[in-house]
Amino acid sequence: MHHSGRVTSELQKTVGRRLRERRRELGLSQEAMAEQLGYHRTFLGSVERGERNLTLASVEQLATSLGVPALDLLRD
Amino acid sequence: MHHSGRVTSELQKTVGRRLRERRRELGLSQEAMAEQLGYHRTFLGSVERGERNLTLASVEQLATSLGVPALDLLRD
Repeated sequence: MHHSGRVTSELQKTVGRRLRERRRELGLSQEAMAEQLGYHRTFLGSVERGERNLTLASVEQLATSLGVPALDLLRD
Repeated sequence: MHHSGRVTSELQKTVGRRLRERRRELGLSQEAMAEQLGYHRTFLGSVERGERNLTLASVEQLATSLGVPALDLLRD
């Protein structure tokens, strides 16, 4: 059975969950966080929903902007 | 100072080190491992050297083909 839809990796979902948790810890809306970190709101929203197949470098950059180690975003 | 060279993320280097360690544990050459996993030898070599800015999904796929959890490749 050929899988035609986009396969969302577990890692993508984990990064999304951890980003959302971190944002909530900071008490920020997606918009406020995006502004603070210099990202676009819709981009952060799609990362949170696990829709973005980020590269290792962009995960690391996101973590750096959040002031957390990259591994913090990669494990529950 | 504008950094013109490609920035290699720490995560890329970690994945490279862990892949190489795993390959050595299995006692395989890059060529043999590439063949077994269905990757191109030069691709695996570049991943091992930390030259590839892999996506989360491709790290997960690589881990699955190695029979290890993705996190195993993401932390030392």
